[in-house]
Amino acid sequence: MQNSITVGIVGATGAVGVEILSLLASRKFPVKELKLFASEKSVGMQVTFRNEKISVQSLNATCFKGCDIVFFTAGSKISKAYAEIAKNAGAIVIDNSSAFRMEKDVPLIIPEINAKALAFHKGIIANPNCATIIMLMAIAPLHKVAKIKRIVAATYQAASGAGAKGMHDLIEETKAHLGGTEYTRSVIPFPYAFNLFLHNSELQENSYTDEELKMVYETRKILGDDSIRVTATCVRVPVLRAHSEALNVEFHTPLSSKKAYEILKNTPGVTIYEDREKNRFPMPQDAVGQDNIFCGRIREDLSQDNTLDLWVVGDQLLKGAALNAVQIAELLLSKIEFTSPRKTKVLEESHAI
Amino acid sequence: MQNSITVGIVGATGAVGVEILSLLASRKFPVKELKLFASEKSVGMQVTFRNEKISVQSLNATCFKGCDIVFFTAGSKISKAYAEIAKNAGAIVIDNSSAFRMEKDVPLIIPEINAKALAFHKGIIANPNCATIIMLMAIAPLHKVAKIKRIVAATYQAASGAGAKGMHDLIEETKAHLGGTEYTRSVIPFPYAFNLFLHNSELQENSYTDEELKMVYETRKILGDDSIRVTATCVRVPVLRAHSEALNVEFHTPLSSKKAYEILKNTPGVTIYEDREKNRFPMPQDAVGQDNIFCGRIREDLSQDNTLDLWVVGDQLLKGAALNAVQIAELLLSKIEFTSPRKTKVLEESHAI
Repeated sequence: MQNSITVGIVGATGAVGVEILSLLASRKFPVKELKLFASEKSVGMQVTFRNEKISVQSLNATCFKGCDIVFFTAGSKISKAYAEIAKNAGAIVIDNSSAFRMEKDVPLIIPEINAKALAFHKGIIANPNCATIIMLMAIAPLHKVAKIKRIVAATYQAASGAGAKGMHDLIEETKAHLGGTEYTRSVIPFPYAFNLFLHNSELQENSYTDEELKMVYETRKILGDDSIRVTATCVRVPVLRAHSEALNVEFHTPLSSKKAYEILKNTPGVTIYEDREKNRFPMPQDAVGQDNIFCGRIREDLSQDNTLDLWVVGDQLLKGAALNAVQIAELLLSKIEFTSPRKTKVLEESHAI
Repeated sequence: MQNSITVGIVGATGAVGVEILSLLASRKFPVKELKLFASEKSVGMQVTFRNEKISVQSLNATCFKGCDIVFFTAGSKISKAYAEIAKNAGAIVIDNSSAFRMEKDVPLIIPEINAKALAFHKGIIANPNCATIIMLMAIAPLHKVAKIKRIVAATYQAASGAGAKGMHDLIEETKAHLGGTEYTRSVIPFPYAFNLFLHNSELQENSYTDEELKMVYETRKILGDDSIRVTATCVRVPVLRAHSEALNVEFHTPLSSKKAYEILKNTPGVTIYEDREKNRFPMPQDAVGQDNIFCGRIREDLSQDNTLDLWVVGDQLLKGAALNAVQIAELLLSKIEFTSPRKTKVLEESHAI
């Protein structure tokens, strides 16, 4: 019997929700039934999935009944309010927010990197921060051969990280700027047309923003190594939906750029993308709509031994969010028989690295 | 008698040339006569300076006769072809290109930092790379108290670094993109509307671009310390004319962020610009048209002792190019009596740090 399941999406009309819907269809995820949830103003809206119209429902205490897996993509507040309810209704939650990422019982999963950690879930699985996923896709494979000591990361993050409204703000403010008119931004806090700003997530006592601290702490949890030291500067740039990152990575042992290229060329989910003759390396535009993250210009750092500079670019909405979440669901599906009552049975271990 | 001099500007109609002209007027530089030079297609064009119309001339073997100071702002090729001619005609050359920066006899000057080095010039003085100037304005004062060991820099460089045509390309391509039409870029090599790319200066064998190597080697020359280790990733972002930089700076001795703030608050040419309550730090838009570079969010790096993360933003055309060049000329003026025949006489040392 096919392991076909009932899937819920919270935030179904948001930027990430829309991508999850599209991926469930394109990747032929065995959806038996789909339940879509969104904020009050989207309730009743009809969304097409595999030629079927599905009405968006509102969230309530009983709405998750019958769901096997529920994707949460509506931010931390909604996840904190409803994830436990979904879990108690018998669903496994895949949460795209930061609400539970650092909790001990919540696996923080990038399927290509730490699929094994999935086994320890207690009903909630967290999808990592987008900048962290894109960074780790390129450097986790290197960590396996030369153990990472310290990372200095600078990000170039797209509007999509602030959702569909963030992308809309960028487009509309730029139009207004070019036309000499005014536009009132809805979610982007600072002028964005031909401008950039330090990521406006909450600023902590130590002067790091939450976004930067996610890169610090999620990296350690995903790689299972608390000795890894990370500093990051997260910046929002006027780009629509792919994040770029300049990474300076120090290893415990020597690792040549040649060896790093070899490793990453053979890493699923990573594409080495460069044309040195043309001085052409990954750009956000290349990564939009692509499942893989793009890496290029791997250099041995002139300033320090055992250190590489890398440049990575990835679609924030895909591998940075929706794709990674759907991959987690696929991994669950390969390991668990969704029956009623459910038997959490490890079917195979082949995804684990 | 007033030390009033004849000034030449090569590249007078370019982005930097226009700013130099404007600064000579606004800063009341004692210009006796102004000679403007540009490429053939601008020859004959009339430029207004202090209510006087001046015709743009073409470059030739005798055009610099009578000039005391000539600013070169038309790129390395023109500097290599004409700087010696200007020098041999008796002028002091202030060169904005990279043509002579690393030559032993050519001082590489940021007046606030290494004015003393000016004394050793042999007729050509180099203006540093824009990203290097903006970086060093913020960290040279810290180097004086805690000696810099290593810098990891990531830049967010504006269109203006590719000149007036670069800015035009950004605006026009963005308009076309939003309008669904096509635009053919003139100088920007890659798609630029809502996109970014690794700086396209020449790629060297070691996989660093020339722009990045400028930050490495010019830093050492300006700070007079070859032990300083630097790595950089230079990126062109869709911003018009101010560069931003994420700097991770390791020192030989401890330096608290508090102390760094104190130092930079009292540094001429630097403005600490932040509102922590509003999560508001320097943005390119703040720095446009401003003489000072803006610095904010100085943090003690969580990942390493004796290390600070800093965020700096500066107008690429002003402190990054034209303003620094005019400041060099002002410094010359304060030190040298421009008579005929010229006496290179040090008048005072007060500018030296």
